[in-house]
Amino acid sequence: MSSSADDFKTGFRRHAAGVAIVATSTPEGLVGTTLSSVASVSADPAVLSFSMARTSGTAATIVEAERVSVFTLASTHEGLAAAFAGPPEGRFTDEQGWTVDADGTPTLAGATAAFHGRVAQVIPAGGSWLVVVEVDDVRLGDEDDPLVYHDRAYWALGRIRSHVA
Amino acid sequence: MSSSADDFKTGFRRHAAGVAIVATSTPEGLVGTTLSSVASVSADPAVLSFSMARTSGTAATIVEAERVSVFTLASTHEGLAAAFAGPPEGRFTDEQGWTVDADGTPTLAGATAAFHGRVAQVIPAGGSWLVVVEVDDVRLGDEDDPLVYHDRAYWALGRIRSHVA
Repeated sequence: MSSSADDFKTGFRRHAAGVAIVATSTPEGLVGTTLSSVASVSADPAVLSFSMARTSGTAATIVEAERVSVFTLASTHEGLAAAFAGPPEGRFTDEQGWTVDADGTPTLAGATAAFHGRVAQVIPAGGSWLVVVEVDDVRLGDEDDPLVYHDRAYWALGRIRSHVA
Repeated sequence: MSSSADDFKTGFRRHAAGVAIVATSTPEGLVGTTLSSVASVSADPAVLSFSMARTSGTAATIVEAERVSVFTLASTHEGLAAAFAGPPEGRFTDEQGWTVDADGTPTLAGATAAFHGRVAQVIPAGGSWLVVVEVDDVRLGDEDDPLVYHDRAYWALGRIRSHVA
């Protein structure tokens, strides 16, 4: 790794990110992973993006999927986030609250929101894929504080600094 | 606006995001804006992404720029973040700590990190541009807590929930 890659990683450790899980149905069952790169791109039409390292087997499945689902996590979900960043056997366990609709759409009980849509673009960028999803189905869960990723740890929100006009 | 756009916005209000400023030098001076969509895409090679609404005049300048700079903000920077989300006259004021190197690279005193690089890809997505930046110069500032954007407000981090293995 180049020294500039080290500095890049150190720099981004100072940034904060929301935490989500992306999932898709396959003939072999659900596949998914934790993401700290989910961002709203456009509200109307509804588009979101995320990125995944191309070395990841889960990423290879997600970018080939026709439809994917993105679940935003609450501040109490640090165990779920860690499970979906760990070995495959810790993902989609019975106690995590996953169900699958008749059409294959996954649902995560407790997610603050679920965004379902079509993989519209997969853009190679550095060692990763940047994935653009056209969202056609949003399901709101219970409102809850968000989980935050920062400096290799999961955090809850603290004090409000200011409201945006 | 469609009801799905309303649900999309409500859903993303439940997500958290880090806060950064993107800036570029033009013959008329510095141009920049606050972003809550900055994400690390790849560390080696170093690539980041962000998105901007296509209706924004600042966005039109940024996507035409050869080089841009992204500054990650500390939790005490909510005033700076608000200024760069507001009218142009509040941006790049003397007291905000901006300087420009001889080669046109902007610097923001107090940014926790600065990422300078080349606009490599501009991808239309919904009503926005998704911008991919190949980063070739990272300058680390003083370490500090990050500023977080969530539910139309700026926040500081709270309690740590768990460290990532």
